[in-house]
This record gives sequence, C-alpha cells and structure tokens, in this order.
Amino acid sequence: MPIPPPHRPGGRSARITRAVHAATVHALTEHGLDGLSIEAVAARAEVNKTTIYRRWGTREALVADALTANTGRQVTVPDTGSSREDLVVFARQVRDAILAPTSRALMSALSAGRHHRELAEIGRRYWADRLAAVRPLIERAVQRGELPADADPDVVVTRIVGPIWFAVSGPGLAVDDDFVAGCVDTVLAGTTSPAAGDQSR
Amino acid sequence: MPIPPPHRPGGRSARITRAVHAATVHALTEHGLDGLSIEAVAARAEVNKTTIYRRWGTREALVADALTANTGRQVTVPDTGSSREDLVVFARQVRDAILAPTSRALMSALSAGRHHRELAEIGRRYWADRLAAVRPLIERAVQRGELPADADPDVVVTRIVGPIWFAVSGPGLAVDDDFVAGCVDTVLAGTTSPAAGDQSR
Repeated sequence: MPIPPPHRPGGRSARITRAVHAATVHALTEHGLDGLSIEAVAARAEVNKTTIYRRWGTREALVADALTANTGRQVTVPDTGSSREDLVVFARQVRDAILAPTSRALMSALSAGRHHRELAEIGRRYWADRLAAVRPLIERAVQRGELPADADPDVVVTRIVGPIWFAVSGPGLAVDDDFVAGCVDTVLAGTTSPAAGDQSR
Repeated sequence: MPIPPPHRPGGRSARITRAVHAATVHALTEHGLDGLSIEAVAARAEVNKTTIYRRWGTREALVADALTANTGRQVTVPDTGSSREDLVVFARQVRDAILAPTSRALMSALSAGRHHRELAEIGRRYWADRLAAVRPLIERAVQRGELPADADPDVVVTRIVGPIWFAVSGPGLAVDDDFVAGCVDTVLAGTTSPAAGDQSR
C-alpha cells in the first residue's frame, strides 16, 4: 500500500489532507464503508479524485489514515504522577473517543471491514499502534509497584478498555465516569502476579 | 416487527427455519449485511421468498433471529458447583463463539448496523437477553461470597467478556485459555464492594 509522503503542516498539502480526512469521516458516518466512494469524498473535499488516488492509493488506506488522524487528536497518554489517575484519564478519553459519532462510524467501518482482508490488517495495525502508544503508562505503573513486574501491558490495557468498548458496541450499557474508573480499579486490584504472568501472546 | 409464530420442532416448519437461518448466516459471512438479499437467502434455503417475508417480515428481523439461534446453540450457562469454574467455562464458550466465522460475520453485521436504527435496537436487545441469561451464574457467585453483594451482574459479565471481545475485534491479541481464565480471575479478585457498588446503569 502506498505510504503518503510527508507534507509541510499548514501548507496547501496539509489543508488538502484535513479536508479529505473530514470528507472521509463524513462519508463513513453517513453511508458506512460500503457507501464510501472516492468520487464523493473528492467532491466534498473539493479536490481532484486523482489527488486522492495518488496520495492514498486505495479506499482502505484512506480510511486507515483518517481513522488514525481522528483518534490521535482525541486520545493522549497522560503523566499526572499517579498511575491510577493516568489510567482513569486515559480510559475516559478512550470512552469519549468511542462515543464520538465520527469514531463510532470509523470503528463500524473497521469492524465491517473484517470481510476485507486489507482493511482487517489496517485495523490490527491501528490497534497495535494504539497499544504501543499507551505502553509507557503501564510501565510507569509497574515501576511504582502498582502492577506486577510481569504484567503484560497490552493485556492490562485490553482488560481496561475492553469492557468500555463492549458496553458501548454490545449491550449499550451506560459508560459513565464511575463505570470507567471501576474498570481501572478492578484491573489494578485484580491483576496479581500469577494471573498476569503466563497470559497471552 | 412481526414476531415469528411458534412452530413444531422437527416438522417441516422447523426445517424451513433451520434452512433459512443457515442461508442467512452464509449470506452474511459471504457478503456482509449490505450484500444480504432476501431473494438470495430464499434461493439458497430453497424456500419461497414470500415465506421469509411472511415469517420474519424484514431483513433486520431475519438477521436478529439467525443471530440469536446461532449463539444460543454455542453458549450455555454452566453450573459446575464452582463459580470460578462456571465463569471460566462460560467465558471460553463466549470466546469460541466470538472466534467462530459465522459469529464474527453476524457480529460484524450488527456492528455495521449501527447505521440502521432498527438493527442497532436488535443488537441491544440481543445483548440484553444474553446478559439476562448469565445473571443466575453471577447471583450464585454472590451467594457464595465470591463477589460482593452489591456487584452489578451486567457490569461483572461486561468486565469479563469485554476484554475477549475487544482483543479479537480490535488488536487481534491471542485469546487462549490462559487469557480467558485471567479475565475471570482479574474480575473475581478485583471486584471489591466500593468499586462495584456505585457503577453503571
């Protein structure tokens, strides 16, 4: 898949990128992945469709790039001095990102894309990047003794984020601040060395 | 939405139901929701399409019914005498159901259906039914003192199932038996009274 070349931020190129991302998110929100056409995105972003093909190559690459740009703006990795607080702030941001209509449309598109091999791969890479980004937060918790030394960071984050994701995309449970803090507290209290040691990957 | 009338199991009617369910699951697996046509399902199941319209009314009702029938066959609520064992057996069945290609296609269809109001509602009802079915298991754990009396059963199940669901549908982490048992043990060890008390719903 072609990788978009670097562009000067703030220039004409960055404006095009932003406009195309916004048009992509809009098209996904309105029509889902199967209704997303490069032509419609180009028309809405007021760029030539050859520009989109040249820069992103495929519809799948365009969606992946819009997804990453969209979430990158919404979720940061806090460093407040308290691991519990860091995890609560992070998990609330994830919750807000999951609840945002644009994210839900993008997640829906990714999930529906399990039929598309390339899109499924984009989804896995996207999540691998997100898990890698939050790893320092978990490593700080280990250094402070708030998680066992052999806790797998990806498993810890999965146990915190998974219930929020499932509550929203499955039964539609309320994911208020208490629910989210409870997810963090359960994992901090429940992750003990033998249980966390020999799991996964 | 029309509710399918009861039919004698084993009779011609039950055979039609099974054939239509199987054809629906096949169509979803192959083409996703947007590619699912009643005509194609009727052809594959070798029934008249008016039979499908008469019995299920809409494509959405058909998908919901196929989904429920499919998962009902795969996930039971065990009663082994040990709550931890019950939860591990249950969670492994959920894991197997999530990993099964037919379930993944159905889940994908439901998730993509967030654009469809009726399908989203079917999804919520489906999950509410699943959570209700497993509630006795959680209540037994409370009676045995393995979970606090004020633990919310739906939240407990969400915290166990959520990470499995997310690991599969997000980053694609391995969800082996140890991962699943770890999800149960973390929630059993980490669900303390204050944390579980004031959450959700």
